[in-house]
Amino acid sequence: MLQNILEVNDRAAVENRERLAAEAVTAVNLISAPGAGKTSLLERVIPTLRAGLRSAVLEGDIATTRDAERIQRLGVPVIQLLTGGGCHLEATLVRKGLDELPLGDLDLVFIENVGNIACPAEFDLGEAAKIGVLSVAEGSDKPAKYPLLFHEVAALILNKVDLLPHTDFDLDLFERDFRGLNSAAPIFEISCRTGEGVAAFAAWLEERVRETQGVEIGPGPE
Amino acid sequence: MLQNILEVNDRAAVENRERLAAEAVTAVNLISAPGAGKTSLLERVIPTLRAGLRSAVLEGDIATTRDAERIQRLGVPVIQLLTGGGCHLEATLVRKGLDELPLGDLDLVFIENVGNIACPAEFDLGEAAKIGVLSVAEGSDKPAKYPLLFHEVAALILNKVDLLPHTDFDLDLFERDFRGLNSAAPIFEISCRTGEGVAAFAAWLEERVRETQGVEIGPGPE
Repeated sequence: MLQNILEVNDRAAVENRERLAAEAVTAVNLISAPGAGKTSLLERVIPTLRAGLRSAVLEGDIATTRDAERIQRLGVPVIQLLTGGGCHLEATLVRKGLDELPLGDLDLVFIENVGNIACPAEFDLGEAAKIGVLSVAEGSDKPAKYPLLFHEVAALILNKVDLLPHTDFDLDLFERDFRGLNSAAPIFEISCRTGEGVAAFAAWLEERVRETQGVEIGPGPE
Repeated sequence: MLQNILEVNDRAAVENRERLAAEAVTAVNLISAPGAGKTSLLERVIPTLRAGLRSAVLEGDIATTRDAERIQRLGVPVIQLLTGGGCHLEATLVRKGLDELPLGDLDLVFIENVGNIACPAEFDLGEAAKIGVLSVAEGSDKPAKYPLLFHEVAALILNKVDLLPHTDFDLDLFERDFRGLNSAAPIFEISCRTGEGVAAFAAWLEERVRETQGVEIGPGPE
């Protein structure tokens, strides 16, 4: 049955990916441990994106709509996806979220996964890229201990770098372990508290959107 | 099949609990998000326990033996439980760990779960108590967002309180949300970095061991 769950998920992921491609919408799947700062990152990066780039959020949670309420204040479309106990998003639930978004009027969809760095990495949602978020407060040993996620990400946010002086986080160990799993993904050192590093991540996202829409076509109309 | 997994787990949990009771051993199941400080807590509390209290650790991880190596330095028995990708410990794997421990010579077994606050709360391992660990860096909204764990715990460690001045953690909001889910469990405010608060948690553990062994019998022989 576990095999069956994954097959059903993967079929829905393929459909989601085709649908997003047809609308030239870039979807990114944000994955982190609880409290690493996924919602804070969205609160920082969405207002930093270039004017005219139209984004929306699918907000995954086990319980409560607190994060969705935070996103709503940014003035972008947000759809709450409640897993009802489930520890990760599945592509079938994401499909329901996409049904409720005005995809034809969007460039970028953020999918905020449930706070968990084990299971979410195993489920393809149809996204263009998985983005990992690691808080320095979690410690530098996390890539080695949760290798699948760190292997899968197309970009890694190292968040809460304002706490570096107050923790034992070992940047060298972290980078060595991470690069052993993933040689390509850029690392963005960010503080969602101060805003440090957010602009570089926003530029990376804009580049992903340009790739999806094609350089010839240029950015979508306002 | 999910039902079947839970039934197999629960049968093994009952057996584990009976076996631990027969040997008058107290087992506690430590659950937290990745990097909240479960291993650091063990490094602090094990040397703080009263002389003669004999403890051991079952160390659950998805990958690597790094935490088990840290525990080994404390000079207590430690058995590594690798889930091979699985995001939580199950009672059948804990049973294998108990097989390798000298239970007749022990008072207290710490079971360090995989870093995850969703799934581990759903699996009874046969422990006497679940203990939650929350780092203040994760934010005060976690009880509301992951209610099952916070409802289930017999004690809650609020860890990394040395970071309180550097974060937006709202102690009042946290306590209100937590008490809405759990009116009985004590909260231990701890810094594993400084050692603050560890003695009170050690005393609580010693009291649990005394309860298991019976006041009349007294502490186990050295």
